[in-house]
Amino acid sequence: MIYLDYAASTPVSEEALEAFSQLSRHYFANASSLHDLGTQTDAVVSYAKRYLAQLLDTTSDEVFFTDSGSHSNIYALLSLAKALPKNKNHILMSQMEHSSVFSAAQMLREQGFWVESIAPNASGEIDEQCLSNALREETGLVSIQHVNSETGIIQPLARLCPILKRSGITVHCDAVQSFSKLDVSHTKLGADAITLAGHKVYAPKGVGVVSFSKNVPWQSVYSGNHQQHGFYPGTLNAPLIGAFVASCEQLWPKREKINAHLQNLRAQLVTQIRSRELPIELFDDKRGAILPGIFGAFYQGLQGQYVMLESNRHGVCIATGSACRVGLDEISPTLKALGYSAEKAAQFFRASFGKDTQLSEITAFVDVLEQLRPT
Amino acid sequence: MIYLDYAASTPVSEEALEAFSQLSRHYFANASSLHDLGTQTDAVVSYAKRYLAQLLDTTSDEVFFTDSGSHSNIYALLSLAKALPKNKNHILMSQMEHSSVFSAAQMLREQGFWVESIAPNASGEIDEQCLSNALREETGLVSIQHVNSETGIIQPLARLCPILKRSGITVHCDAVQSFSKLDVSHTKLGADAITLAGHKVYAPKGVGVVSFSKNVPWQSVYSGNHQQHGFYPGTLNAPLIGAFVASCEQLWPKREKINAHLQNLRAQLVTQIRSRELPIELFDDKRGAILPGIFGAFYQGLQGQYVMLESNRHGVCIATGSACRVGLDEISPTLKALGYSAEKAAQFFRASFGKDTQLSEITAFVDVLEQLRPT
Repeated sequence: MIYLDYAASTPVSEEALEAFSQLSRHYFANASSLHDLGTQTDAVVSYAKRYLAQLLDTTSDEVFFTDSGSHSNIYALLSLAKALPKNKNHILMSQMEHSSVFSAAQMLREQGFWVESIAPNASGEIDEQCLSNALREETGLVSIQHVNSETGIIQPLARLCPILKRSGITVHCDAVQSFSKLDVSHTKLGADAITLAGHKVYAPKGVGVVSFSKNVPWQSVYSGNHQQHGFYPGTLNAPLIGAFVASCEQLWPKREKINAHLQNLRAQLVTQIRSRELPIELFDDKRGAILPGIFGAFYQGLQGQYVMLESNRHGVCIATGSACRVGLDEISPTLKALGYSAEKAAQFFRASFGKDTQLSEITAFVDVLEQLRPT
Repeated sequence: MIYLDYAASTPVSEEALEAFSQLSRHYFANASSLHDLGTQTDAVVSYAKRYLAQLLDTTSDEVFFTDSGSHSNIYALLSLAKALPKNKNHILMSQMEHSSVFSAAQMLREQGFWVESIAPNASGEIDEQCLSNALREETGLVSIQHVNSETGIIQPLARLCPILKRSGITVHCDAVQSFSKLDVSHTKLGADAITLAGHKVYAPKGVGVVSFSKNVPWQSVYSGNHQQHGFYPGTLNAPLIGAFVASCEQLWPKREKINAHLQNLRAQLVTQIRSRELPIELFDDKRGAILPGIFGAFYQGLQGQYVMLESNRHGVCIATGSACRVGLDEISPTLKALGYSAEKAAQFFRASFGKDTQLSEITAFVDVLEQLRPT
């Protein structure tokens, strides 16, 4: 199979897998245990925290681990909301967040918070005007994703965060899709809380990260929990955390080369679709900045679901949108926020590629798209 | 190091590690994705559900995965509580639960539930009398662990559950410590919800299980979540789930042999402590049924912390209690519930062993204990 669904989950690098096996063999103890094996296991976690803290410009005691990007989003938002002053109970999130952010929003509403959403502008960006339309006197927390998993749209966090910070508003940023491709550090983005996930960066599944900038107030979701200073319950998973960092260490020095490779693949994909005059409307024609590895488009006259299934029949794995929403018979909130009709949204498909994708695979994919051309 | 801390975390079996590596290489896709790689990944999860459903006497669509025993306890209790009728808002749990159950209890109190605890009898058992002392007209949910991680005490769930079921009360059982050693199926225990964890049964860390018996009502903790029918958010971790099942498949046919081995190790440990006339009070002298692999004791005149640290200095890893409570300067709720004073509880230490523990390691441990004898 040709795998063009990197935004849903990446293959695991051999380096990360090897690190996991070695760490599992030697650092299997409970990191909380006070004997030497526990201490050594804890040292793996400490190393990981220091590495990530340096990458993200924070201190290592502000780095927390969960099991997924979803849980990182949920725990970050609930913990930050719990620490908001009583008169700052209004929470905002963009209309194009990951489903886990909407899950957290639902829970926050049940807890009595006033939660609203921020509509993007015509090009899909949350700009200063969108923000000021949504902000209220009582706004205490805002969540804006860095890169959308369906469309690849990059939000201008570095422009928005200073505005929010000046009003004393806490900012959370879901950087799951952008991490390792763009600089997502607290200094660069300006966010107070940043969410990452391992299985989008060639690590084994099962690691999420929440990084806070220094002195951001948060409170335990489960006040009786003592693991990770109360942030997240359960035994720390030193082998998975170590494998995640091993993957980051492999990836980080190569990121510019990989980004150039992804840019090239995307350009070739666009060129081939155009030169073959396929009836495909490119999503990014009308948009601002887009992450090169995520390619959204509409196949005129065909359902995205059909394009995906037929691609699969011809040996190419693509998607129709976020894997976390598969099976839901409703229009994607992202496409809805961008103003697409249900009919148009149903034509959407997504290909996403990564460091190991070959140009020949892109060509093979366009060959499949050509075969699907309605006659 | 001699590792006698299996109750905190077991070493990972080579079979489980090999399964994890193979599954990570081939089933890295998102199990929700509808292309063939996603479908194949989902098939790994489906296989695991069928295997566990058979082991636990339920149907495979009642088996859910989390990342830990802690989260399994928390999600099970919050989900079950959310579905309770309005007039059944009283929730009970034994005084000797894992800290994650107490975390859930705290959250349930914040949500407006009336949560109380069940005191054990003098031998550490929750018996019919303890239960009837605690039950109220409004009781809707009861949580009783199967085996305590600090003391090894086995609770008579098979006797208690029918009483609770007759009153229409839902029963949750944390079977993390007993799974693979005792029969923890819904039929045998009678519980409506059962919690398991992978890293106590030689699987890699990062898998917890919640199994419901058929038609037990529960509601999503995060109502906006659609993963696992709303039970738990985040991408399903097919490689870890598959590795967990690989470990179970290895373990299950050998369980009687392993149990006999653990019985023998424990008997030898007791015999050696007695024959050397060490000033050690065995915990189980006054108790009912105890899981053979968990050995609690009090070293007269010495702090448990000192026994643990000195054992460590001499190359033996043991514990003073639950690793999830390390660093808390307070008496363990379990020992408190059993009526021990703070002074006495401070003398407590725990050794726990597993399938790979050798008799020579037990003897080496008793040698260390002998060296610690106060002069």
